[in-house]
Parts: sequence; structure tokens; C-alpha cells
Amino acid sequence: MGLRDEIFQQPDVVENLIKQQWPHIKEIADSLRKMDIQQVFLAARGTSDNAGLYAKYLLGIHNRLPIALAAPSLFSIYKRPPNIQNALTLGISQSGMSPDIISVLESGREQENPTLVITNDPSSPMAKAADFVIDILAGEEKAVAATKTYTAQLVCIALLAAALAGNDRNYQGLKQLPALIEEVLTLEPLIEQIVERYFYMQHCVVLGRGYNYATAYEWSLKLKELTYVVAEPYSSADFLHGPIAIIEQGFPVIVVIPGGAVFSELLGVVKRLSEQYQANLLILSNQDEALSYSDQRIRLPEMPEWLSPIVSIIPAQLFCYSLSRLKGYDTESPKGLSKITETL
Amino acid sequence: MGLRDEIFQQPDVVENLIKQQWPHIKEIADSLRKMDIQQVFLAARGTSDNAGLYAKYLLGIHNRLPIALAAPSLFSIYKRPPNIQNALTLGISQSGMSPDIISVLESGREQENPTLVITNDPSSPMAKAADFVIDILAGEEKAVAATKTYTAQLVCIALLAAALAGNDRNYQGLKQLPALIEEVLTLEPLIEQIVERYFYMQHCVVLGRGYNYATAYEWSLKLKELTYVVAEPYSSADFLHGPIAIIEQGFPVIVVIPGGAVFSELLGVVKRLSEQYQANLLILSNQDEALSYSDQRIRLPEMPEWLSPIVSIIPAQLFCYSLSRLKGYDTESPKGLSKITETL
Repeated sequence: MGLRDEIFQQPDVVENLIKQQWPHIKEIADSLRKMDIQQVFLAARGTSDNAGLYAKYLLGIHNRLPIALAAPSLFSIYKRPPNIQNALTLGISQSGMSPDIISVLESGREQENPTLVITNDPSSPMAKAADFVIDILAGEEKAVAATKTYTAQLVCIALLAAALAGNDRNYQGLKQLPALIEEVLTLEPLIEQIVERYFYMQHCVVLGRGYNYATAYEWSLKLKELTYVVAEPYSSADFLHGPIAIIEQGFPVIVVIPGGAVFSELLGVVKRLSEQYQANLLILSNQDEALSYSDQRIRLPEMPEWLSPIVSIIPAQLFCYSLSRLKGYDTESPKGLSKITETL
Repeated sequence: MGLRDEIFQQPDVVENLIKQQWPHIKEIADSLRKMDIQQVFLAARGTSDNAGLYAKYLLGIHNRLPIALAAPSLFSIYKRPPNIQNALTLGISQSGMSPDIISVLESGREQENPTLVITNDPSSPMAKAADFVIDILAGEEKAVAATKTYTAQLVCIALLAAALAGNDRNYQGLKQLPALIEEVLTLEPLIEQIVERYFYMQHCVVLGRGYNYATAYEWSLKLKELTYVVAEPYSSADFLHGPIAIIEQGFPVIVVIPGGAVFSELLGVVKRLSEQYQANLLILSNQDEALSYSDQRIRLPEMPEWLSPIVSIIPAQLFCYSLSRLKGYDTESPKGLSKITETL
């Protein structure tokens, strides 16, 4: 059992999760609907924080809930928690162990807000600090780099969004996921060829927008953890407000651009990077128009945009795993990292 | 008139702003206090977004206001604005021109929330979309890389926090700023020597935490804009949750670590980077203990932690300006950037 196995477990993990946790999550949603929740106050770190970015878009678009990402040090170090009212305080953590995240939940609860934790360990200290717990049921994750626990967190967020909206159609939509994930897992041999070009890559930029802003962040984090590449994630809009200055001919840019509402905006940036900057573009898309600008391409299946982050991260995981192996690095336990990180 | 002049105008800009805008900002605060404001909903891009990070900590710690950073595409592209209630909708922008930020303000207003804009152009479309406007009075900024408009935005946020808290002591505290900024401007010759080492730097990490999380982001953005270095900003806590894997011997790490509540937590990371990783550390601090770990050091004056971001960004600006000149780049108009960026 190792990182590659955990990546390939994802269809099963996701299928099981969608079946097993739907009744429980509907109950949580029923309870939450009886409360006057006006917003979500979210605390997470690392990969779980990237899952939080998906929540920001999904709960925003499907449930019209504004989401504030907590600054945990206000709670844990400055000891000046902001006044949180009518807010679902949401913690996301694989291990449920980090003291700073726990301090946000405790404060949310002290201020009489409902608290919810999404975790792989329902007996963790963080789960104990919450009114409601969603177990992501991913099974033990041994590799330090999180993969199946990330997709499982995304699925729990999607189940919660569907349950809060009372939307059975979106729940049914989620059932496409295992097959979609199976399909992109077959890209492994192609991705093993693609990574050849990136053997000496020292830094890169990963772009996404909207729902896949989360994918850009998570791909970038996996690149850092597994391949030690200085990878910077951006929303394409933020990227234009300054950072684009770093791009020169051949600069590696990865773009996550499935079809959807943000497609044409992001395509404009891809065009500019290709024509004006001659950047080296790795494009992840299901749209021919986007793929036509690529130097290297990974074709995604057709799918609704709101589901796409749960699928598009899989080729990214394979990319980072393959590149890590190619470089001869330790894919299971990258240097300097431990599975559980506790910060104050 | 160029970038260097604008950097050196900052004592005057800040002094004038503190004097001129205090009565107006107190009036705004009086109006806001009569409303039931439970949170701040903030929209900004680029440098102004970094100013927003300062607001997140300052309004959190001094005013107990939670701050949510808007995802502008929910408003401008997905056309599904979240339900915002009892929230001051705050836009920050030098030019007041970006359509995505304007769409957030318009939605805040339509949903009957008070709206406030902090801008260098009180006749801009963004200012017109707001109930209250704070002119940052920075004068025309010709260089593409924002410097004086960033510090002016921070000062406006600090004035607003003091006015909302009805705290005259904090207002008086702000009056130290012009002298503190004058003091760090005298570091220019030292910084011109320090940048020599970074001539061939291709990437780096910039760390800060708490109030100076904003400084890490802004230093990093200026490095990208002016020196084309792939600079990644992190809170020291987020950094430990994965990204630390990229650090190897000699890796350039810049740390903004003035004395204050987060000092000891951040010092632990500095120690680890020095002893365990042999990173190359450029330390910006007023604490001997932190400076003792540095390969290169910039000494800050003593000051309250909440004021420190307005002072600590000045040596960072000088660093980026000096390195840009050393590399023979265009300091006034970096490649690929324009002064006003309009994104959807």
C-alpha cells in the first residue's frame, strides 16, 4: 500500500462515501436548515484548506452562502477571536489534530454557532469540539501527500451543498463521479510520458478559476510536496494583476480549464500566454479550443463544471506522483514532512 | 518622478493622510456604528488584496469583525452572488476601475448593505458604486508597481479601525509612522549592498504571520513585478503544512518577523530553517534573537506590532527596486503590466 494505491482507490472511496454518508449528511442539513445560518466560517490548513476553496465556490453558487476563511492565529495566538454570529463554523482536517484549527471551532461553539467538522478521524480532538461530524470514510492514508482524503473532502462538501439545497438532482449528479475518476485514471501511461519534459523544471505557475481555483492550489501543493518544484497557484484574474510579469519564453504554465462559466475568461489568458509570451503550456481541458493552445495536453471527460474539481485533480496527482518517481524522490514520505502537522 | 521618488514620498503621503482624512473617517465610522454591522465583505485584487489581508487582522483584532474575502467571479461571471447580510461591503482599489470588484460592491448595495471604497480616485466607477468613499490622497502614482498607494491603503484601514473602535490612543499611535518610515528609508545604501547576493536568484519564499502576512504577500508580489523572481508568500503555519518540502540548502527564504504576539511561533520556523535546512535567510526584524539566525539582515525600528506592516514593507520596496535596477530591468514599467488592470 502506497501513494499510487491510494490514488487508484479513489473511485471506490468516492462511490462508498456517496452511498454511505448521504443519509447522515441529509440529517445534518435538516438540523442546520432550522437554524438561522447566514454564512460559513471556515478553518483548515494545507490540502484541507484547498478543499475549503471548493466549498467557497460551491456553497456560494449552489447555496448562496458567503464563506469567510478564518485567520486561525486570531484565535490561537492573538486570542482575539472575531465575533461570529449566525455562522456555521466549519473545520476541515484529515487528522483532526491541529491546535489552531481546533481553537477556531471552540470559539465558534462558545459564541453559540453550530459547528461542523469534516475529517478522516471522527474520534479526533477536532471532531470532539464539534456539534456535527462528517467522517470522510477514506480509510487510513499512509502516504504523507494527501490524495484520496482530498477528493473525499470535496465529495463531502458537494453532498452537504446538495443536502442544504434539498437538491436530489445534484445528488444524482455526484453518482457519475466514480466512472469519471476511473476514466481519468487510465491516463496514467500518457502522463508518464508527459512528465519527461518536466524533469528539470524548477518552478511553474498553475492557473485555474472559479470551481477549479481549488485544483490550481492543490496541484501546486502536490508539486511542492512530491517534486520540490516551486509551484505558484493563481486565479487567472489575480495573475493578471501583477504576477504575469514573471512569465518568459518557455516558462512552464499549467492551466486547469474545463468547459463552464469561467471558460472564456480563462481562455483569453491562455491565448495571451501562448501568443504574446510563448509560455510552455500544459493544458488540462475537455474543450478542443483550449487544448489547441497546448504544448502538452491532458484531455478531461465531459462533465458539469461544479463536479470537475473532483475529477481534474486526479491527473494532477498522477502527474506529481510520476514526476516524483522519475526524479527518484521518496513518493511516500517527502523530505521534511510528517503526516500530521500541528501548528499553533 | 519615478518609482524611487514615490517610495521616498511615503512619509509625506502618510503624514498628510493621517491629518486630512481623520475627521472624514470618524464621520464614516459614526454612520457605520449606527448600523448593525456583523462582518466585512471585502473585494480587491493584486496589491489592494494584500492591503485587505492587513484589514483581516487589524479589524479582527481591534474591532472583532470577521472579514470574508469575496470571490469576485461569483458576482461577475457565475452571476450567483452570495446572500450578504449585515456586512460592510468594502472595496479597495488604487484605480477604482476593475469590473469584477465593482460587481461585488453593486451586489452588496443591492442587498442593502453599506458599501465603502478605499481608492486613489474618488471619481472612479468603483467610488460611484459606494455609499462611503475614502480617498487615499496618495497623489498620482506613475510607476506600475504600487508603493505609496499600498501604504496609504494600510493607513486608511488603520484609521478606520481606530475610528470604529472610538480609540484615540490608536489614532495617536499612527502619528509615529512618518518618522518610522523616514528611519527605514535610510536603509537604502545597506539594501543596495544586500541585493548583490540575489542577482541570480530565480525563486524564493517570503514568510510572515499575523499582521505581517500582508507584508509577505506584498513583498512577494513586488519581487514578481519588479525582478521577475518566482516568489511565494506564506504564513509560517501554512508553510509547515506541506510547502516546506521545497527547501534545500541555500534556498532563499525571506522572513518578516518584528516583535509581537506571533514572534515566538515564527522564530521556531526560522530556527528550523536555519539549523535543519541550512536555508539562506534574509531576516527583517527588530529582535536580536531573530536577527542572530540571519545570513543577511535588515534591522527594523521598535514599534507596536499592529503598525509594523506599514513600516516593514518599505525596506521590501527598496529591496525590489534595488534588485530590479541591479538586473537592468525597467523599474517604471515592468514587462507585461499596465497601471490599470481590468478583469471580469
